Amino acid sequence: MGKHRRPASPHQLSDLLRLDPGAPVDLTRIDPGSTPGSDEGKKRAREVQAGLAPRFADLQERLYAQGRSGGPRRVLLVLQGMDTSGKGGVSRHVLGQVDPQGVTIAAFGAPTEEELAHDFLWRIERELPAAGQIGVFDRSHYEDIVSVRVRGLAPQEVWEARYDRINDWERQLVEDGTTVVKVFLHISRAESKERLLARLDDPTKHWKYKAKDVDDRALWPAWQQAYADVLQRCGTDVAPWFVVPADHKWYRDLAVTSLLVEQLERFGLGWPAADVDVAAERARLLAAE
Amino acid sequence: MGKHRRPASPHQLSDLLRLDPGAPVDLTRIDPGSTPGSDEGKKRAREVQAGLAPRFADLQERLYAQGRSGGPRRVLLVLQGMDTSGKGGVSRHVLGQVDPQGVTIAAFGAPTEEELAHDFLWRIERELPAAGQIGVFDRSHYEDIVSVRVRGLAPQEVWEARYDRINDWERQLVEDGTTVVKVFLHISRAESKERLLARLDDPTKHWKYKAKDVDDRALWPAWQQAYADVLQRCGTDVAPWFVVPADHKWYRDLAVTSLLVEQLERFGLGWPAADVDVAAERARLLAAE
Repeated sequence: MGKHRRPASPHQLSDLLRLDPGAPVDLTRIDPGSTPGSDEGKKRAREVQAGLAPRFADLQERLYAQGRSGGPRRVLLVLQGMDTSGKGGVSRHVLGQVDPQGVTIAAFGAPTEEELAHDFLWRIERELPAAGQIGVFDRSHYEDIVSVRVRGLAPQEVWEARYDRINDWERQLVEDGTTVVKVFLHISRAESKERLLARLDDPTKHWKYKAKDVDDRALWPAWQQAYADVLQRCGTDVAPWFVVPADHKWYRDLAVTSLLVEQLERFGLGWPAADVDVAAERARLLAAE
Repeated sequence: MGKHRRPASPHQLSDLLRLDPGAPVDLTRIDPGSTPGSDEGKKRAREVQAGLAPRFADLQERLYAQGRSGGPRRVLLVLQGMDTSGKGGVSRHVLGQVDPQGVTIAAFGAPTEEELAHDFLWRIERELPAAGQIGVFDRSHYEDIVSVRVRGLAPQEVWEARYDRINDWERQLVEDGTTVVKVFLHISRAESKERLLARLDDPTKHWKYKAKDVDDRALWPAWQQAYADVLQRCGTDVAPWFVVPADHKWYRDLAVTSLLVEQLERFGLGWPAADVDVAAERARLLAAE
């Protein structure tokens, strides 16, 4: 019923954080300060994450190698959440653990006039990861429902039609070899306020502060409802949503790292075979200058 | 005369590695196994690089913050060099030290039919970094001279015209706020052979092995001459070339890290000022729920 499910094993965070596709979602029943599957605190979580890092880097390199060798697989990490929920932090601290050659990050702001002149998925399609890549969407096509709805940028019939459009489109992505990992970073109104105050109090963070973030806070319940609806209506078997409690940055980083590692493990990727006769190439190379 | 110049200070590797614009270039006079400015070996070099990393990350974040706040500056790191010279290694180990949100990496292979139907700079332009970004070109527009020449893909008048085209184009980039850092990774024929053999001997590296890399070795002197000519004719005051001896990976990584840090230091970037009245925003935020 929207609450996090019990773990299948202590190491399968995805089972703790995945929402049941189709089940009602009530975000007020998920505590943004909770740390499912990681009850031993920050120090231990940082150790666990450091322990995962080499495996994460190895799996990412296999994905990249397969992509360079004709494999179709790619991963799309969709990050949604209120301002200050840590979408940039995930890009930096989670994806920063692997080879940047295999990572593409796209941040979606308000659409430009050119983008608005196209279908809402036009600008999204252009940023999809190539084979072998992990693509990160810092905001995404979900803004075309959530923001449009909360800000009243288009009539209801426009954004209502997009739930099904998105579900069809994501299904197609999955069929074409993309693993879609959708993460809602769930932050509390109180923690968000603290982070906005911290931006105002630190001159090295002033550039991150946008007055509209405070305007958005006034509509907090409307945002939460709009997010809950996309989590429910766009949570599918092929592309489920994960809700990551995000009041603790250390938990957020560990959780998203774990989600990606679990997905990559599931691929069971080996290393691509040589496309040459290795012994013959070795002889040719040794014979040459 | 193509040899590395003496250092201005022990910490200014750029002065050791920069080629004098316009001076004749003789790559046979630069030892790929040398380690200019870093004579204390691998262990010490790794320590120096680790010591630079926090400063590098801080400077990169300032660049990114300025870009997000309207600043025009961006950095383009052009990597050229023979196969196995470590272009991918630089992307991974040097750029992997900073926030991936501020890094874009573009690898240029053989042009597609669509790309060949356009001017040679068309596909290059499309991958230029945005303001605030460090863009990395793993191979670049220089292949449109060097590869085309060595492989005989077009008549001489075609690639001959491109030296001046590139110089004009890079000058324009610099005038528009891009700092162009051009690095030639200088590897020896013997070390390159070792690395190709290592790829054959390690099944986790078979995917990196391309038979054409051995074919290219047969033309080694022709490649070296073609590189020397672009180093000489496209080394300009606004966009000089740096030759980084690349037989030692630890030196290569330290040298490119240093080059980027020195460039970023030169910008003297502060943090962007707030675009709001901080005290008023603070009061508004505290008054809200």
